[in-house]
Amino acid sequence: MTGWVIVAGLGPGAEDLVTPEVSTVLALATDVVGYIPYVARIAPRTGLTLHPSDNRVELDRAHAALEMAAAGRRVVVVSSGDPGVFGMASALFEALETAPQHQGLEIRILPGITAMLAAAARAGAPLGHDFCAINLSDNLKPFAEVERRLRHAARGGFAMAFYNPRSKSRPLQFARVLEILREECEPGRLITFARAVSTPEEVLTTVALSDAMPEMADMRTVVLVGNEATRRVGRWVYTPRSVPA
Amino acid sequence: MTGWVIVAGLGPGAEDLVTPEVSTVLALATDVVGYIPYVARIAPRTGLTLHPSDNRVELDRAHAALEMAAAGRRVVVVSSGDPGVFGMASALFEALETAPQHQGLEIRILPGITAMLAAAARAGAPLGHDFCAINLSDNLKPFAEVERRLRHAARGGFAMAFYNPRSKSRPLQFARVLEILREECEPGRLITFARAVSTPEEVLTTVALSDAMPEMADMRTVVLVGNEATRRVGRWVYTPRSVPA
Repeated sequence: MTGWVIVAGLGPGAEDLVTPEVSTVLALATDVVGYIPYVARIAPRTGLTLHPSDNRVELDRAHAALEMAAAGRRVVVVSSGDPGVFGMASALFEALETAPQHQGLEIRILPGITAMLAAAARAGAPLGHDFCAINLSDNLKPFAEVERRLRHAARGGFAMAFYNPRSKSRPLQFARVLEILREECEPGRLITFARAVSTPEEVLTTVALSDAMPEMADMRTVVLVGNEATRRVGRWVYTPRSVPA
Repeated sequence: MTGWVIVAGLGPGAEDLVTPEVSTVLALATDVVGYIPYVARIAPRTGLTLHPSDNRVELDRAHAALEMAAAGRRVVVVSSGDPGVFGMASALFEALETAPQHQGLEIRILPGITAMLAAAARAGAPLGHDFCAINLSDNLKPFAEVERRLRHAARGGFAMAFYNPRSKSRPLQFARVLEILREECEPGRLITFARAVSTPEEVLTTVALSDAMPEMADMRTVVLVGNEATRRVGRWVYTPRSVPA
């Protein structure tokens, strides 16, 4: 058997947001590797071994996937959303860089519906013009870098999507993020908190920046910040396609 | 019959990148509305009327969709990629804003695999850290705004994805975009030209910024620019997850 590693995006949660491309490779896999709640989405079957692992062990998981593929296994590494957006794809290439013996393996990355785009669709079209995606976690970068990017995104007139806004281990930083946004943007700027999009626990809340509170976000929330033209129409939030001259 | 409008993303081109959610609503539609090449992807069937229209008539198309839904039709407005990323979703809400009589209609936006994420997956993980999406067309915004956003994206350390980099009616601006990038970024910055991703015409080319030429892009190309840490491993391009302190 010739082994391979495929890093596949499962989308934000709903089964009908998993692409047929991803469903096909899951049906061929001998091994599925990933963070516990994502592996829990894969139905067990004969011939398939599930390898759930904890958060923050992305590099170990990537090395394990490469080793199994080198031994002839057909390995799918699952990410929620899209694996190229703060998911497992970069971790796999980091592992590959330090394991040149595996660089001849068959490797593929399969895109998925990333959380910010599922959330934007539910809200209307808040990312309907130029936008930035920023990971607010400072596990892998200094918070000063988060702040620098926030200010450039705001001054450049971008809408923004924030991943990993807040967690039990980082309860305070998101308050600082809101302070920075208030320094850079007008008080009426619309901000949408989208929690657990496409799952039964989905909740969307849109408020003016002046009314945003840190407690509105947790680890299952993606936060969308409009640009200065973003507005409401009925129950929707959208960003116009035009910037006047 | 109760009408509705659903704006649905068809993904970048391959059929197995269309989500089951979108396939389901296409099977229920009485009318499909959209730009000619996107409507051409929908298989004709009894009971379905196809309404292809030309580029640059997005608002007319949105109003027509709302009118048909108000008359009881089940209308799917198709976009390539994701409709919320430089697609038809914003145009629909612009139309809705000026047609308050339609604000009670059932409207849904369904996400799709957007070109930059399909392209990133094929290249490796060039958007594996914070990134911006910028529409380079100045049809709906002044080019000065494009330039402002490019400079902030570069100075903020973002990777970048460019939509609509170059067309027959805008043959020269992309050369100016490359000049701006060369002012802001080092010559070795990796830039990937991804044409017609997931179709039989797919071509990906990665070069250093110093070797990038305007002719490498056309209207079917999405351009991915790494951040300063983006590098090659084997045939792949990826952006590490970390920023050193």
